[in-house]
Amino acid sequence: MKKLINSADSLVTDALHGMAVAHPGIRVDPVTRIVTRAGGPVPGKVGLVSGGGSGHEPLHGGFVGRGMLDAAVPGEVFTSPTPDRVLAALRAADSGSGVLQIVKNYSGDRLNFAMAAELAEDEGRTVRTVVVDDDVATSDSATGRRGTGATVFVERICGALAEQGADLAAVAEAGERVNAASRSIALALTPCTAPAVGRPGFELGPDEIEFGVGIHGEPGLRREPLRPAHELVSQALEPLLAQLPPGGPSILVLVNGLGATPLQELYVVLSEAAGVLGKAGLTITHSLVGNYVTALDMAGVSLTVCRVDSGLLDLWTTPVDTPALRWGC
Amino acid sequence: MKKLINSADSLVTDALHGMAVAHPGIRVDPVTRIVTRAGGPVPGKVGLVSGGGSGHEPLHGGFVGRGMLDAAVPGEVFTSPTPDRVLAALRAADSGSGVLQIVKNYSGDRLNFAMAAELAEDEGRTVRTVVVDDDVATSDSATGRRGTGATVFVERICGALAEQGADLAAVAEAGERVNAASRSIALALTPCTAPAVGRPGFELGPDEIEFGVGIHGEPGLRREPLRPAHELVSQALEPLLAQLPPGGPSILVLVNGLGATPLQELYVVLSEAAGVLGKAGLTITHSLVGNYVTALDMAGVSLTVCRVDSGLLDLWTTPVDTPALRWGC
Repeated sequence: MKKLINSADSLVTDALHGMAVAHPGIRVDPVTRIVTRAGGPVPGKVGLVSGGGSGHEPLHGGFVGRGMLDAAVPGEVFTSPTPDRVLAALRAADSGSGVLQIVKNYSGDRLNFAMAAELAEDEGRTVRTVVVDDDVATSDSATGRRGTGATVFVERICGALAEQGADLAAVAEAGERVNAASRSIALALTPCTAPAVGRPGFELGPDEIEFGVGIHGEPGLRREPLRPAHELVSQALEPLLAQLPPGGPSILVLVNGLGATPLQELYVVLSEAAGVLGKAGLTITHSLVGNYVTALDMAGVSLTVCRVDSGLLDLWTTPVDTPALRWGC
Repeated sequence: MKKLINSADSLVTDALHGMAVAHPGIRVDPVTRIVTRAGGPVPGKVGLVSGGGSGHEPLHGGFVGRGMLDAAVPGEVFTSPTPDRVLAALRAADSGSGVLQIVKNYSGDRLNFAMAAELAEDEGRTVRTVVVDDDVATSDSATGRRGTGATVFVERICGALAEQGADLAAVAEAGERVNAASRSIALALTPCTAPAVGRPGFELGPDEIEFGVGIHGEPGLRREPLRPAHELVSQALEPLLAQLPPGGPSILVLVNGLGATPLQELYVVLSEAAGVLGKAGLTITHSLVGNYVTALDMAGVSLTVCRVDSGLLDLWTTPVDTPALRWGC
């Protein structure tokens, strides 16, 4: 295992320290390790919290700031944060206008965030939850679709709406709507290695890729030979488009590197995806290309498409000022 | 070789097409493949051009926009753009106030940009050149230090000054000053694979790292066992600090991923670097952490330190609006 770390045990703490050094707009609490906006919760604004296992950087800490999250609660690598730490994040984000927690659909996360919400409500706080479930590779799973790239869209749109002063019900409703309108699929060129495990989660031959992998190194649906990007992208988008809910032609697209994929290759993927999506009658109104929801050192890409109406589009383009997503500020 | 590409031949063109889809603020000329700001050169403003071989994305195309470059000229992977294409970029960036070209110190780039400057001058244009040479691993080389991470600092500061209406001499002088005040060093965990070659540029054992590698996969100064990040960072900063020109305590720091390094690990590196730099009496005023000057799919990191006075700091924080660097806009 080759990693630029001190130890598996100190990795999350060390990385959070680096984040705090790099970004004066965020704070990292040394005890709870909660990442918050510098200056604390914004009076009168609905608070936004997200979190989950680490290893997906910049998700979620990199999305803390104006127009996105108020607090992020990172667990250990690929491990859900405990309810007490989620509670600390809910407290840190609550200005008295209620808190929305955005939770990716994994059993551990759902359980721990639900317990934290109960504890917060016992303190008299109002908490709503949006569960993100966009990964079509897991459509037939008993636990439902996994939450992956659509999390970025949900966090951005909810963050924009909260910044405009919308109330908790409206922010939660927008989050549900964005999630319902989003679908994702991932393919891996290499597996990833969790530091505490020390070996890859699965094996891939020198000319093999795997369709439908998860962001924790979960094996995919099937293994196939590596082929030119246009074939892989076309094949990846097939189940995604088949499961994309009906609606207008405007879409947001995320071409997301899984951690070890050069930006150059991600641009090639967007170029190919634009062709396929255009032929499907869809219009890319905005796109993100880069590492947003990673799987440690996995080489590969995920594609997320979100169908948006003009109301959501207006929210997308409002100012956002976070370490990993920034415009208009 | 595992890459998300169609072919080595079409890679640069495909990636540039993806860039154009992703970023409405830039234009890619389909014939010359020059990347320019949408809207063309800004009247009365000194034009800024940079370029070089591809494979270092987001450098340079990702730095085209307000407060940074007017045009970028990408060559094939790890191959200098030809003089006629550099000339096309100089023309595209010239509003009549002269053009500064920022060139990394490699023989091919220096030669081709020098020829292009001559051709442009034959057309009556005024061109100045700043050569970036910051990599201390090559201090003893006959051709001088290679140009690496400091390019980002030079492009940003020159871009800021040009945006304020400074003349060509002043912008060039600032570029020289930033370059002279900057030093870099890189270490690799894995080699990189150029698509047209199809195999790694060197071999590294499963527990080996290499100090002093270049951004084209040039082998480094020495091979050593992988050790905890704090040891590697401390060791990497030693020659860098020894060769950093004297001056005040304020520094800019770039912790740059070489392409396949997770952001989490880059933050660990910044955390460790902050400790070492602090002990050396230096104060990090701003830092960048992420993939800025990559070497295709190489895993590893480069560190760049630039000593800055308050004038340069004021320029650093002015608005910049490019695909890969954005604030204040």
